[in-house]
Amino acid sequence: MPNHPAPITVIRLGYRVGRDPRINTHLGLVSRALGANKFLVSGDKNHKMFETIKQVTKTFGGEFSTNHLDAPLKWIRKYKSEQKDGGKNATVVHLTMYGEDYRKVIKEIPRDKPLAIVVGGAKVPASIYRMADYNVSVGNQPHSEVAALALFLDKLQDGKSIDRKFSNPKLEIIPDLERKNVIDHEKKEEE
Amino acid sequence: MPNHPAPITVIRLGYRVGRDPRINTHLGLVSRALGANKFLVSGDKNHKMFETIKQVTKTFGGEFSTNHLDAPLKWIRKYKSEQKDGGKNATVVHLTMYGEDYRKVIKEIPRDKPLAIVVGGAKVPASIYRMADYNVSVGNQPHSEVAALALFLDKLQDGKSIDRKFSNPKLEIIPDLERKNVIDHEKKEEE
Repeated sequence: MPNHPAPITVIRLGYRVGRDPRINTHLGLVSRALGANKFLVSGDKNHKMFETIKQVTKTFGGEFSTNHLDAPLKWIRKYKSEQKDGGKNATVVHLTMYGEDYRKVIKEIPRDKPLAIVVGGAKVPASIYRMADYNVSVGNQPHSEVAALALFLDKLQDGKSIDRKFSNPKLEIIPDLERKNVIDHEKKEEE
Repeated sequence: MPNHPAPITVIRLGYRVGRDPRINTHLGLVSRALGANKFLVSGDKNHKMFETIKQVTKTFGGEFSTNHLDAPLKWIRKYKSEQKDGGKNATVVHLTMYGEDYRKVIKEIPRDKPLAIVVGGAKVPASIYRMADYNVSVGNQPHSEVAALALFLDKLQDGKSIDRKFSNPKLEIIPDLERKNVIDHEKKEEE
């Protein structure tokens, strides 16, 4: 059972088609696999990248939504205020190598409230630092936003992010030390 | 203090310049930031990618080596036998979405013995499954080799992979909730 029952949204800022195609796909797939519900991308539009993620959801199950964001700052502002009106303050976390240790910050994040995780791109507007409730680092060495997102999502869920079940998969992979072990649910039904 | 004192080598198989440039750089930087000592890459040669990683090491400190591997299977075979001759059996782990749960396997990996972590590429030769001491998955959903490597390295070091200190940095980032806080050690010395 994942330990952040409220919805998690991952927002990727300033995506550039020419430079980031696979990094961005990986961010989307990590969001899905490790317990987020939604993946929003600002910057360049790229339907192919969203298609890849949708195809994975279709094949491996569960519910996961993706969308392009034209005005991410506006979206974040609205997200914070809307949730506050409903009496359930959302939390906005900004992942940056300049922030505070994620292991410290995660303890303060309410588990029962919606959470948006903002992942920077090439140039992050300074206002993001102010709009975020927490500027959070996963180490203070340059490495990867994919790795930072994964470690953050997993820690948030007490190391159990991969235990989430995905409903109605077509394919299901069974952990196996020796070989590839895949159940094809569609084939089963046909037989 | 990281909890895997013996050297850790990360091996990326079957790198393709046209498709993976940034994914591969991220794998190298994650290896460095989260406690590995060496990053070896088979497949296409790409000096620029190695240069990026070297530049990060030069700027942010520590020791980290990178190299191209012409014959990865041969290298792995030699690595295992050499270490065995020296009486300190090395462990070879292969990260794959078909493997066994990493949280279970990590408990069995000797902390005081050299470890090689093999990260697959486009087509992984079947022999890797047999050569590896453990075929290990970080979840059985498709996501990212960068995320899988990060979660594996961190778990191996009991969630403390980012606590490693890097010697003689030129730049050092200080965790800060409010702002970018960077120490420029070279500037200090000049003043």
